[in-house]
Amino acid sequence: AVLGVLSQARRLVSLFFRMGDETFKPACRSAPLYATFFSLRIHKEHAMNATANLLQLLGCRLPVIQAPMAGVQSSRLALAACRAGALGSLPAAMLTPEKLCAELDAIQAGTDQPYNVNFFAHRQPAPDAAQQARWLQALMPFYREFGLSEHNIATGGGRQPFSREQADIVAAYRIPVVSFHFGLPEPQLLEQVKAAGSVVMSSATTVAEARWLEEHGADIIIAQGLEAGGHRGMFLNRDLSTQAGTFSLLPQICAAVHVPVVATGGISNAATAHAARQLGAAGIQIGTALMLADEADTSALHRAALQSPRAEHTALTNLFSGGYARGIVNRFMREAGLISAAAPPFPLAQAASAPLKAAAEAQGSDEFSSLWAGQNAPLAQSGSAANIIEQLAAGFAAP
Amino acid sequence: AVLGVLSQARRLVSLFFRMGDETFKPACRSAPLYATFFSLRIHKEHAMNATANLLQLLGCRLPVIQAPMAGVQSSRLALAACRAGALGSLPAAMLTPEKLCAELDAIQAGTDQPYNVNFFAHRQPAPDAAQQARWLQALMPFYREFGLSEHNIATGGGRQPFSREQADIVAAYRIPVVSFHFGLPEPQLLEQVKAAGSVVMSSATTVAEARWLEEHGADIIIAQGLEAGGHRGMFLNRDLSTQAGTFSLLPQICAAVHVPVVATGGISNAATAHAARQLGAAGIQIGTALMLADEADTSALHRAALQSPRAEHTALTNLFSGGYARGIVNRFMREAGLISAAAPPFPLAQAASAPLKAAAEAQGSDEFSSLWAGQNAPLAQSGSAANIIEQLAAGFAAP
Repeated sequence: AVLGVLSQARRLVSLFFRMGDETFKPACRSAPLYATFFSLRIHKEHAMNATANLLQLLGCRLPVIQAPMAGVQSSRLALAACRAGALGSLPAAMLTPEKLCAELDAIQAGTDQPYNVNFFAHRQPAPDAAQQARWLQALMPFYREFGLSEHNIATGGGRQPFSREQADIVAAYRIPVVSFHFGLPEPQLLEQVKAAGSVVMSSATTVAEARWLEEHGADIIIAQGLEAGGHRGMFLNRDLSTQAGTFSLLPQICAAVHVPVVATGGISNAATAHAARQLGAAGIQIGTALMLADEADTSALHRAALQSPRAEHTALTNLFSGGYARGIVNRFMREAGLISAAAPPFPLAQAASAPLKAAAEAQGSDEFSSLWAGQNAPLAQSGSAANIIEQLAAGFAAP
Repeated sequence: AVLGVLSQARRLVSLFFRMGDETFKPACRSAPLYATFFSLRIHKEHAMNATANLLQLLGCRLPVIQAPMAGVQSSRLALAACRAGALGSLPAAMLTPEKLCAELDAIQAGTDQPYNVNFFAHRQPAPDAAQQARWLQALMPFYREFGLSEHNIATGGGRQPFSREQADIVAAYRIPVVSFHFGLPEPQLLEQVKAAGSVVMSSATTVAEARWLEEHGADIIIAQGLEAGGHRGMFLNRDLSTQAGTFSLLPQICAAVHVPVVATGGISNAATAHAARQLGAAGIQIGTALMLADEADTSALHRAALQSPRAEHTALTNLFSGGYARGIVNRFMREAGLISAAAPPFPLAQAASAPLKAAAEAQGSDEFSSLWAGQNAPLAQSGSAANIIEQLAAGFAAP
């Protein structure tokens, strides 16, 4: 504690003396300006410390996390990210235990760098027959158009919350970093993950969620701005009016918690990465920016949509899973309404919307697909993941 | 044209040589990094040119516009902003011609600096008796609670779009800068304003609106991110799903138009001002950040709400005017629903919601008031407008 106070004092004294140097003089003509530069300089020092803390926790070279994107990527993108110096991520929530182990084997064989595995931490809702019937009723016009019936709906399966079996795999593979979406798993399971030595991350979509995550043991918090593509990590409420843009959410979460904060939502090129650091981020998590990468498994239909003018209009919808998620607006979203009161809660809506996606895609159409994308999708570049990551990391670190 | 090409070439050559200097060397270890620093350097040069262009158009010292905020400020805040070196703004849409002239007299007597006057450019909808009846019906439970009836609803008046009379005042006073909300006025009126020598600004909430404004003669475009408080300037559609956060809207508008782009929405302290410049803004417009200023006429109820934890939760609502606007969530918004299908279009809903506000405020309650605020309201500081403006301007300009 004494050392901490001494180091703080030394930092302040060194800042005080550096304020006299040439970079400050030209612009500082008055006391308030002087104070502002002083506060920005402290801000910058603080951010550099936060980045150092983040890199120590993650063990990778760059303060960049490749966002886990179920359905769009496998160990291939994770490996490419790890090799580029970022933290590669494997989306595990939709994998069977066998498939998960096979992917983990592939990652461990392909790199000696740290990596992240992502699970869902939602509470599984009980199926409600009346609600399922209302949902099917709402979808029936589309079902008829494609010659589908309720017999086309797969039973069982679906996305399950983090389980004991998955926690055992985390421990057996000594997974370096584990991230959760939709909060954190039950205390015993979280304890097991932490006891195995994994660093734990989770996403916050409000200041209240960030405070909750810090109190409940998250080592790193991902501030998910409203611009972000895919599922929102909301877990304390389902009120969309609580969701704030990165420009507001990020500085407010940075001010509210002590653990490193990673920015996500709209971080798509060097300039946006740079701006995220100005707002206090210790690092960045990038998803949409990597969807056109060579190593991503983004479908041809999805890639084409991302590269078309349609990518200018994304919206939040609950049609595909029951949870709120951002994707490029298509016919299904326009005609069924972005937010349907008939849709059962996450993840139950997915069973009945999946046959529509399959039938439309079989005809070469993306009008019933979940075309996940963030609001900065028009800025996404193609090329190797390494090249994209290096550009954003350089933007983040630029003076 | 030849001179332009030469100047471009000279700029590129000078950038090329400066790339060899010490600031670049330590971080540039590979070609992609080198390219990123190169692009950020061009980005920075571009932003500096954009700021110079903006200041030339506005004629003020700082690239900061005090946002016009009807109901919250008068010429007093505008004058304080002008004296601090920013562009002060007078919200004129709710002023009678006599009151407008009195305020203009006060500004011209109080400063020789340029200033901005803001008008609304909506198209006035025809009143619809059936819709008014539905709206009154929706409000009736609250009316009963306060002992109100339809006789308490004022007739006539209300916010009118920019008129010939106002255009004549603009010309007579040679108003330096005129800004419009909700698009631009009819072509003849706009022509009259431009012929009088006024610089014209308007707000864009989508990339499409920014392109439209540039095509239709706006000299400066204000990119209004979803974080912004008060009325959204939407005018090409009423689809809230098209509204993007500052982190996405700002860089995309900067890439889409050639006129200077001013950022608004979430710009509340030095760090957010700095981040806005990183995203390409030529300047910033600040509203919520000035609502606690000494010179603002923000009511005591409104100030208290802004300084309470309630300021963490703002939302878009159409209850107060019929147009979408962001304010601190209160009982009226929670119980009537944020977006009411019964509300007539802007500005017609206001007539029937105003008596509720008056009745509740008479009891010392803000639960039926429009507590306009942006998503970064918790970052707003009190003090003199000059101090707030200097801090944000210093943040914007910081190296």
